[in-house]
Amino acid sequence: MDSFEVNCAHHDLFRQTRKMSSPVLPPAPEHRFASDNNATVHPVVMEALNRANAAHATAYGDDPWTAQARDAFSELFGQQVETFMVWNGTGANVLALATMLSPAGAVICSDSAHINVDETGAPERILGAKLIDLPAIGGKITPDQVRSQAHALGVVHHVQPSVLSITQSTEWGTLYSPAEIANLCDAAHSMGMTVHLDGARIANATAALGGNQEALRSFTVDAGVDVISFGGAKNGIMYGEAVIYLNRDLARSAPFVQKQVTQLPSKVRFISAQFSALLADDLWLKNAAHANDMATQLFEQTCHLSGVVLDQPPVVNSIFPILPPEQIEPLREWSFFYDWDPHAHQVRWMTAWDTRPADLDHFVAGLRHFIQ
Amino acid sequence: MDSFEVNCAHHDLFRQTRKMSSPVLPPAPEHRFASDNNATVHPVVMEALNRANAAHATAYGDDPWTAQARDAFSELFGQQVETFMVWNGTGANVLALATMLSPAGAVICSDSAHINVDETGAPERILGAKLIDLPAIGGKITPDQVRSQAHALGVVHHVQPSVLSITQSTEWGTLYSPAEIANLCDAAHSMGMTVHLDGARIANATAALGGNQEALRSFTVDAGVDVISFGGAKNGIMYGEAVIYLNRDLARSAPFVQKQVTQLPSKVRFISAQFSALLADDLWLKNAAHANDMATQLFEQTCHLSGVVLDQPPVVNSIFPILPPEQIEPLREWSFFYDWDPHAHQVRWMTAWDTRPADLDHFVAGLRHFIQ
Amino acid sequence: MDSFEVNCAHHDLFRQTRKMSSPVLPPAPEHRFASDNNATVHPVVMEALNRANAAHATAYGDDPWTAQARDAFSELFGQQVETFMVWNGTGANVLALATMLSPAGAVICSDSAHINVDETGAPERILGAKLIDLPAIGGKITPDQVRSQAHALGVVHHVQPSVLSITQSTEWGTLYSPAEIANLCDAAHSMGMTVHLDGARIANATAALGGNQEALRSFTVDAGVDVISFGGAKNGIMYGEAVIYLNRDLARSAPFVQKQVTQLPSKVRFISAQFSALLADDLWLKNAAHANDMATQLFEQTCHLSGVVLDQPPVVNSIFPILPPEQIEPLREWSFFYDWDPHAHQVRWMTAWDTRPADLDHFVAGLRHFIQ
Amino acid sequence: MDSFEVNCAHHDLFRQTRKMSSPVLPPAPEHRFASDNNATVHPVVMEALNRANAAHATAYGDDPWTAQARDAFSELFGQQVETFMVWNGTGANVLALATMLSPAGAVICSDSAHINVDETGAPERILGAKLIDLPAIGGKITPDQVRSQAHALGVVHHVQPSVLSITQSTEWGTLYSPAEIANLCDAAHSMGMTVHLDGARIANATAALGGNQEALRSFTVDAGVDVISFGGAKNGIMYGEAVIYLNRDLARSAPFVQKQVTQLPSKVRFISAQFSALLADDLWLKNAAHANDMATQLFEQTCHLSGVVLDQPPVVNSIFPILPPEQIEPLREWSFFYDWDPHAHQVRWMTAWDTRPADLDHFVAGLRHFIQ
Repeated sequence: MDSFEVNCAHHDLFRQTRKMSSPVLPPAPEHRFASDNNATVHPVVMEALNRANAAHATAYGDDPWTAQARDAFSELFGQQVETFMVWNGTGANVLALATMLSPAGAVICSDSAHINVDETGAPERILGAKLIDLPAIGGKITPDQVRSQAHALGVVHHVQPSVLSITQSTEWGTLYSPAEIANLCDAAHSMGMTVHLDGARIANATAALGGNQEALRSFTVDAGVDVISFGGAKNGIMYGEAVIYLNRDLARSAPFVQKQVTQLPSKVRFISAQFSALLADDLWLKNAAHANDMATQLFEQTCHLSGVVLDQPPVVNSIFPILPPEQIEPLREWSFFYDWDPHAHQVRWMTAWDTRPADLDHFVAGLRHFIQ
Repeated sequence: MDSFEVNCAHHDLFRQTRKMSSPVLPPAPEHRFASDNNATVHPVVMEALNRANAAHATAYGDDPWTAQARDAFSELFGQQVETFMVWNGTGANVLALATMLSPAGAVICSDSAHINVDETGAPERILGAKLIDLPAIGGKITPDQVRSQAHALGVVHHVQPSVLSITQSTEWGTLYSPAEIANLCDAAHSMGMTVHLDGARIANATAALGGNQEALRSFTVDAGVDVISFGGAKNGIMYGEAVIYLNRDLARSAPFVQKQVTQLPSKVRFISAQFSALLADDLWLKNAAHANDMATQLFEQTCHLSGVVLDQPPVVNSIFPILPPEQIEPLREWSFFYDWDPHAHQVRWMTAWDTRPADLDHFVAGLRHFIQ
Repeated sequence: MDSFEVNCAHHDLFRQTRKMSSPVLPPAPEHRFASDNNATVHPVVMEALNRANAAHATAYGDDPWTAQARDAFSELFGQQVETFMVWNGTGANVLALATMLSPAGAVICSDSAHINVDETGAPERILGAKLIDLPAIGGKITPDQVRSQAHALGVVHHVQPSVLSITQSTEWGTLYSPAEIANLCDAAHSMGMTVHLDGARIANATAALGGNQEALRSFTVDAGVDVISFGGAKNGIMYGEAVIYLNRDLARSAPFVQKQVTQLPSKVRFISAQFSALLADDLWLKNAAHANDMATQLFEQTCHLSGVVLDQPPVVNSIFPILPPEQIEPLREWSFFYDWDPHAHQVRWMTAWDTRPADLDHFVAGLRHFIQ
Repeated sequence: MDSFEVNCAHHDLFRQTRKMSSPVLPPAPEHRFASDNNATVHPVVMEALNRANAAHATAYGDDPWTAQARDAFSELFGQQVETFMVWNGTGANVLALATMLSPAGAVICSDSAHINVDETGAPERILGAKLIDLPAIGGKITPDQVRSQAHALGVVHHVQPSVLSITQSTEWGTLYSPAEIANLCDAAHSMGMTVHLDGARIANATAALGGNQEALRSFTVDAGVDVISFGGAKNGIMYGEAVIYLNRDLARSAPFVQKQVTQLPSKVRFISAQFSALLADDLWLKNAAHANDMATQLFEQTCHLSGVVLDQPPVVNSIFPILPPEQIEPLREWSFFYDWDPHAHQVRWMTAWDTRPADLDHFVAGLRHFIQ
């Protein structure tokens, strides 16, 4: 496979390295490869939190920090957007979908979507709506799959497809191209639906697709996305996500629904201050680019190890190796990471904004210790 | 009235003061009297946040900070309790009630309860359950009121009283005595119900009732309360509340329901670290006692002002003066505060852990400027 | 009291009757006074059911019986209306409200409203919305009460008043005048709300207010009501209610929501056939007028009995006597009826379309046997 | 194929018949092949309805007709069961599942389950729970599929498998054997789940599996099913289904939840009277056996027609032919039926208790007219 050639060019070097495999267990990496939500807070963000802790501020959003962060988002997207600071990703998704769904409406998503499998049914409980989950290789659904649901439109016995929710980058660490998202938006809009983008890792996606505002806009504003869950906690902030309404009409009820779904922070200035720090000087893109780069390096340093099956290089910040079953637990106990597909002995390794080369070195050394 | 004599002992002094009322508008107080959720983060808590920002930690609760905070809560209540860190007060209440309600069950609460009037229907939406709101003078309901709902038990056409939710201190700034809560618990338990205590300001209540662990236990563990929403954000932390199950049987489904109602933080260590800091060295009680004290001083300095009607001294950290209608807006514009009962021209002034004597002085001076 | 004079004119006659009070227990009435939903099916309706049982018919509404019943409702209201046949009153109310509520919206109703106290929280569960129940003497709320909720509009912490639901005739057996309903509709509409009329006994109300189409239209179409739950099962049919959208814009999602809330019958022709029979030849009004008349006669024959406290004559088909506590159970065991206010020893006696004079005679005789 | 030989034995006869194919369009069948819910009410049931219309009866279930029907169900299942009469199949399913689900629980079902695709999301709205829909050939899921969901148990990010819902006979007109259901129940119970059987066509299944009580018990009581939606409206009654709790512990909250989900009929005696009539003298089995037999005959008379693709004979009362695309609409316009898989030009023909040989003759004649 081409990508194999490209990414595993130092094949011989690694084979040589393997021969020297270390019998001594190295120290576990300080910044492990479990999840980007295990990571620390970026010092610039931490500093912003400390700075925002000055005097009293009106709760619930009518404060200068929030005004500034909202302006920053409008500038980022190149148009006036409506921005709501919420607690977490599940909350962001629920708020977005709650304001987008029509009566008896359903959400179309991939079968591996976070809303479908990793939110303990929060959407069903709080929205009272069905998720129509479509089988999706690599977490990506196609316009044809969306259109295949049109048969239900107008039939009273079926839920009405109302919102298409896609994830960028996906839970599988893959990316939609801007054109693919534009085509999905066209398909959805032509069926009277609106489009939600779960951007828990939108920074990693943007970094991978060009690493600037134009890249971001190409797969959001320009592609026709209506509402975004804009992630923060996986990219260097302590807590907080933002729901961004590019389609501002959909935001009309959002201030009320936000409180109703428990997602209106009182001291919201502290989320806003973090986002302002993250968006300033492209910190959000630098963090994400670094995480992506570390994942690529992790892939390159492990893809040739015997016992590690890795079929393609990462485009963002996670890889999904298949490992020898009996070595998974010892390795995990030494440095924690998550299963991905237990039946296939497939795990997930994920980098973060704070992954350092030394972490890579330690992890690869440990891997050689346990696996080989 | 007795309390008037006691609290307004410096009556003559104040009358004299009024004669010297300042025609010049003083600077607005740095820490205003709008709400304790407008306040800053205590420096010790802020320091704990900075310290917790070290290396990677498992998300969702399996981290040493959370273990430590949970132990601290068990120690505080003098027994093993189950503790869940959540985002905010509405979330804490919803999680608690979701795990307590029986099928077709209803929540009995006061008509001024936060869950009833200040959460935009989050309980109804997320619980799918009715709140039976009982008229309550000063926010306190009585055992007789609870018992009066027993007629519905076993009748299929009526919701089944299932949870009694009380607030301590109440939204009206009043307190239940430990005996009153014990009697309410007895009434509820005898009807097969469980008891939830919304403790958004449980620290202020504890400070007012003795200011130590025994005081806290007297109206919670000892009184028979089952589950507590333990507030933090109004008492010096940045964000976070804790749901405490004294009745641990009720906690069985809580880990799942917590995620389902969007209240499971990923980087939960940062909430836990704050609570550990707050509980250490009785900081939570010191903060609350200070806020209470400031409210008493505010009462004493304003109760005799002509134009200010204040009928009783505060027991916790808020007072509810009636003001001359036409002066409310100018005063509010100078230093923001909230309406309480617009029809009665009644407003709410609230102190916080960070209210300083200088803030009092400025506010009282401004009050004299506008009102007199 | 005037009404006493008018309705109890045969005072002496009754006193005389009482002297002859029967020591022997008469047979219980065949058609008792428990509830109009204990009644039989009118033979004309039964005949319609038998006739509709011919050949196959498309399920779910696309059948000639349903088309005919829908036309009959449009004709009745003098304008094109949208009509949905549903199973029962709770279902009708839930469907109506589900299609009327805006996001984060609440329903304003009286504290004795059926939706508030007699539907086991179906509205809260299925709508996920709060009912703001206002204290209402005789089950009637006022425009001022509605307007008093305007303070919540636009405040994100409060549910947004969205639908006003009134009952005609009320659960207390009282009536709104057409002008009263028009004023309520004006108040609601001026706050951006819509108006639902729970007409479980709309026939009894219409009969009492004039007994013809004009009477019906005066308090519905002409008054500004948006959606009606039009009752059938309490007025001579076997099962079924109709949700009538006078405001047809609100009906757009109704076909889907009807199925979603379990209220779309498959063999709907059998409900439609019943309504067609009920509306033909004013049978619905004749049935209701008879029930109303029987209640008036029951009042007149019992209001002077010693031990029976009845303060005002009925306007529709129920009376609410206060009885000697110790005689209630024996009487009820002989001929069943329901408690109304157990604390006050107040019960409810209700007539139906099939109440006969002989039933009255037997019941009054039994009453004299037990009470006197 | 073997089944082809067996079922299409009169192959030559049919070929001959085809040669004589009628150019003249015959009259459409009186009892068409659209759905068994298009059918009429059986005269014995109709007579029972007429008979039940006598005197007043307590509403909501405390009446002799309901007591009798409940006894009949207990006798049918050979043990004391708890029976609740509800309005319709969607309502029966929702009530059953609402009482079975644990907190944060999910329902496992086949992807073609009625609850999943034909109830407009009623389960998600009213239960607030996820349906985990598994791909199922012919509508049947396997124990291995159930067990494959065990990975989610105890993981807070995933909904907790709580109820297995299977349909017998399935939406595809197939049957589980008693052993297959027993194995599914074992798998489910071993995971702490309970088992719901959607028996909208349980009579057809019973008729096909032996046609007596033993057959019914073999795949319900004996197999370990906990709760059944027992269908009536597709088998000769006017309206009504019964929810049967074999596992009586699960019925504890059912009386309240039934009202809460709008499924408590007031004049319930009329449903009970129908069920009593249906269960008496095995009428329910005779009706179903006849429908099944008619479907077999329909298959035998159409499987050899050119243009009609039918791959296997029916086991209950529906067949799913693939037809020439351009002839579907003309045929349907003449005698209505439903699409099954529009992409494949597959339709569904369904027989009912009232299908007569003459209906078959007419339909086959029309088919020859249009298709050939």
